Amino acid sequence: MGEECVENPERIEIDADLIKSRNKMNLKELIHPNKDENSTLLILNQKIDIPKPLFYKIWTLHDLKVCADGAANRLYDYLKDDESIRTKYLPDYIIGDLDSLTEKVFDYYKRNKVIVIKQTTQYSTDFTKCVNLISLHFNSPKFRALISNENNHQSNHGIELEKGIHTLYNTMTKSLIFSKVTPISLLALGGIGGRFDQTIHSITQLYTLSENASYFKLSYMTPTDLIFLIKKNGTLIEYDPHFRKLCIGNCGLLPIGEATVIKETRGLKWDVKNWPTSVVNGRVSSSNRFVGENCCFIETEHDIILNVEIFVNRLIDFL
Amino acid sequence: MGEECVENPERIEIDADLIKSRNKMNLKELIHPNKDENSTLLILNQKIDIPKPLFYKIWTLHDLKVCADGAANRLYDYLKDDESIRTKYLPDYIIGDLDSLTEKVFDYYKRNKVIVIKQTTQYSTDFTKCVNLISLHFNSPKFRALISNENNHQSNHGIELEKGIHTLYNTMTKSLIFSKVTPISLLALGGIGGRFDQTIHSITQLYTLSENASYFKLSYMTPTDLIFLIKKNGTLIEYDPHFRKLCIGNCGLLPIGEATVIKETRGLKWDVKNWPTSVVNGRVSSSNRFVGENCCFIETEHDIILNVEIFVNRLIDFL
Repeated sequence: MGEECVENPERIEIDADLIKSRNKMNLKELIHPNKDENSTLLILNQKIDIPKPLFYKIWTLHDLKVCADGAANRLYDYLKDDESIRTKYLPDYIIGDLDSLTEKVFDYYKRNKVIVIKQTTQYSTDFTKCVNLISLHFNSPKFRALISNENNHQSNHGIELEKGIHTLYNTMTKSLIFSKVTPISLLALGGIGGRFDQTIHSITQLYTLSENASYFKLSYMTPTDLIFLIKKNGTLIEYDPHFRKLCIGNCGLLPIGEATVIKETRGLKWDVKNWPTSVVNGRVSSSNRFVGENCCFIETEHDIILNVEIFVNRLIDFL
Repeated sequence: MGEECVENPERIEIDADLIKSRNKMNLKELIHPNKDENSTLLILNQKIDIPKPLFYKIWTLHDLKVCADGAANRLYDYLKDDESIRTKYLPDYIIGDLDSLTEKVFDYYKRNKVIVIKQTTQYSTDFTKCVNLISLHFNSPKFRALISNENNHQSNHGIELEKGIHTLYNTMTKSLIFSKVTPISLLALGGIGGRFDQTIHSITQLYTLSENASYFKLSYMTPTDLIFLIKKNGTLIEYDPHFRKLCIGNCGLLPIGEATVIKETRGLKWDVKNWPTSVVNGRVSSSNRFVGENCCFIETEHDIILNVEIFVNRLIDFL
């Protein structure tokens, strides 16, 4: 079959029932997680740059809050206007080699009973340390026993300093039955848009978590975008029509990592069929947008990265 | 041969003569172009976010200055503090569909004799319009005759409104002997770090220009990075030792677009040999750095993207 590309009107109806998709997702649930999932807000070490009311709301919508190392400085600075506010938004964990954490911030969060875990290994990134910790928090009774034992507080909570988290995680993973693990909705702030190798490292995490720890549903929020992975073989993306109209702008289907074929899209401004896409060849569907009234459908030969532009100033009204 | 990874000391000597590389480049020349090249500063539509003294210096180091559509608003706003400064930093061209250009800014630059070219086609991006224009400016006598003819000033400078630039470019390219074209050093501000599909679109341009218009030497400057393409088959990257010490931080070898093998690196903190790398598999050399005293060498099986962290506050001292 040859490739096709059609330009659609600004609003079209997609009959969701007609689309036999293996995967379904709701766009808003990336930010406002479903109650039957475990949810985590992960803050990475980059300036927090979304409106405060939105940040506070997203914070309360997530069960667990984790700061990657120097991200605790960023949180501390972000909440600088009001000491009483700062004590209301204490993360559950801070983890990393702690080299970039300032003494003032370290002391502040220790004093306020935040669990600070030092992990010195340079062979995994702060991001990986966080992900392993989050999985342990929800899935390892052994880890939770260590953390809740007050005798451990002065000794890195009983966790070996170099790579204790990594070791605990590997041990746990061996006995974990993935299909029985409660999904973890993981929204990360600060992974995209800073140093470019860190941005690309964040993108690798979308692929590797999907492959190796598929109970994680990872997405990134930036001041302009939501960024997440679309599994091959067809995904229906649902949303409220008002949410689409007011909060969503452009989108891009981004074959980062490998060339693929977009088998079919339904509900984009420029819908395609059998459309080869590749960063190397410069053939990428960018500056596209959702025109399906309440859903759109994307089917690709390999997993692909999707970014959806969001208007952060309006988002709060829908959460 | 099996893969290798060694951790080097913080400073090592690389004998540049020993490395038979087809390609050589000097890192500083990405910002401070060689006098025997044509050079262009391209401003894309994103907030300008580098220190003003650095911006002024980079401006004067480039022959040609081009704003992509709404980027003219950004330039106008960036120079808001002093009207006399604004008239000193007038771009040579503004090009795009002009939808995002405000009337005030349009009038200001028109009044100050900036050449503003409208191109309405939605089938090429502002970036592509700029690149075609830049090539025409340096390589097409026909285009320069149109521009310099004052009778054309009221009629889009004699350029057809929909895709005149594209047509002129295609005609010129047919008769262009690439090996005889003077290289164009093209430094782009604002292509990376905004909307994520635009970031990835910018990355595609590194590959496609290298393939289709190899006389362009494109790199992106962000507040944190320089980002450019390293051709396969070996590139020696040279730099002044002081420049390295004071202006350069981390780097990443980023196989965006396709998996590849890093055949050899010399002069990185973590040097590798025969090292398969892939975004999909999560195996990417990020948070690496240059430890070669005055050069480092990178050889890959396919072209690869390199980012080098720069400290913009110190850069000015080396330009």
